[in-house]
Amino acid sequence: MKNYKFVLQYEGTRYQGWQRQDSTDNTIQGKLEKLLSRMCGEAVEVQGSGRTDAGVHALAQVANAHMHTQRTPEEIRDYMNLYLPEDIGVLSVEEAPERFHSRLNAKGKVYRYRIINSSIPHIFERKYAHVVSEKLDVDAMRRAAERLEGTHDFKAFTSSRKGNKSTVRTINRIELIQDNDVITLTFSGDGFLYHMVRILTGTLLEVGLGQRSPGEMEEILQSCRREKAGALVPAKGLTLMEVKY
Amino acid sequence: MKNYKFVLQYEGTRYQGWQRQDSTDNTIQGKLEKLLSRMCGEAVEVQGSGRTDAGVHALAQVANAHMHTQRTPEEIRDYMNLYLPEDIGVLSVEEAPERFHSRLNAKGKVYRYRIINSSIPHIFERKYAHVVSEKLDVDAMRRAAERLEGTHDFKAFTSSRKGNKSTVRTINRIELIQDNDVITLTFSGDGFLYHMVRILTGTLLEVGLGQRSPGEMEEILQSCRREKAGALVPAKGLTLMEVKY
Repeated sequence: MKNYKFVLQYEGTRYQGWQRQDSTDNTIQGKLEKLLSRMCGEAVEVQGSGRTDAGVHALAQVANAHMHTQRTPEEIRDYMNLYLPEDIGVLSVEEAPERFHSRLNAKGKVYRYRIINSSIPHIFERKYAHVVSEKLDVDAMRRAAERLEGTHDFKAFTSSRKGNKSTVRTINRIELIQDNDVITLTFSGDGFLYHMVRILTGTLLEVGLGQRSPGEMEEILQSCRREKAGALVPAKGLTLMEVKY
Repeated sequence: MKNYKFVLQYEGTRYQGWQRQDSTDNTIQGKLEKLLSRMCGEAVEVQGSGRTDAGVHALAQVANAHMHTQRTPEEIRDYMNLYLPEDIGVLSVEEAPERFHSRLNAKGKVYRYRIINSSIPHIFERKYAHVVSEKLDVDAMRRAAERLEGTHDFKAFTSSRKGNKSTVRTINRIELIQDNDVITLTFSGDGFLYHMVRILTGTLLEVGLGQRSPGEMEEILQSCRREKAGALVPAKGLTLMEVKY
């Protein structure tokens, strides 16, 4: 039994997200487990670095699985790419230390949220970006983003109802880049709570629209109340860019 | 009756190409004419700068149409973007001089052909690039491309059977850019014959694979025979980038 580390790319549009479901499974984890179980002739469980929601994309998701197989890592990669649907791809497979766990060992993650700030369509970005026609004040969004960086209790910025787990996280950087009418927000941190990046983005969007001031960020953090933060933005604008170990 | 100039963006994947067909129409021109005819309450004919083939994309195709309408150009643009399918978009509409003709007045065009030179999938490029797993010699491709630049009879590089029209064209530049395993060929010229960019690319690919030498390019040009040139590469790698006036 060896432990393998996978780096995966997928377009989330057609899927119910990462996490395997019991019935009518249409998930990334489900597709991978089904294929690897077929390859090995026995049940294989795939651990992801985190659960991307339905519609969220990944440029480089990381997963691992313990398997019995005679194939080399390159052969496993090629086998998977041959049989996986066209919107899921395996960038690499390598042997990992037996104790390597893609989620528990992850030291950081980078997510990107993309906004088209225009009423003119961007046909080639339409599945990977959220459209906001009203002019955004990107400088105000940047000032607000700075106030969210650092170590905080992000309880106000998650949809999770699980009361007993820590909601303290560290955001190293929220970078906003404006390239004509495309605004890219890049979040780097040690980990993100359920819906956290999408609620952070929704809150920053409301700052950009002038509905909130950058100064409100501390208040929202301190409140620890979901209803104080902004709206959840659509999944399609979100992409998991990198998992750090 | 005013003449309007349109700049259009589309993903060609789902379409039978630009040019309107008589039955079971699923073309870009057909979709535009149907919509503008409905908007104007009378038949509208849309002229494109050129016919993109089935599966070919456009970042900025140009078209024009003479129409009776009370709407401003911006209102026409918004009306079109409201009703067009999600894979066709209107970037701009403006009034043009009465004699402006998107095809006859075009002075130049820029096309891009994208190749993924890897057996590792590129999920987010899969609809816009052609995959070649075998290692390509990009330097040899560049030397061959240089020999195709300039004014030549490109009869060997077209699938067109029309014998009486001139097949002389000028290619100002064929630029090859390699970014890791993505190779982008950019063709700038005064105009391109039917299938010309895809046959040029197919021929350069065969040079990259070592099946031909750069020095053969002159011989192919001089032969004026289609069978001397390389294979036609798939439509999905091709994008019309710009039309110059």
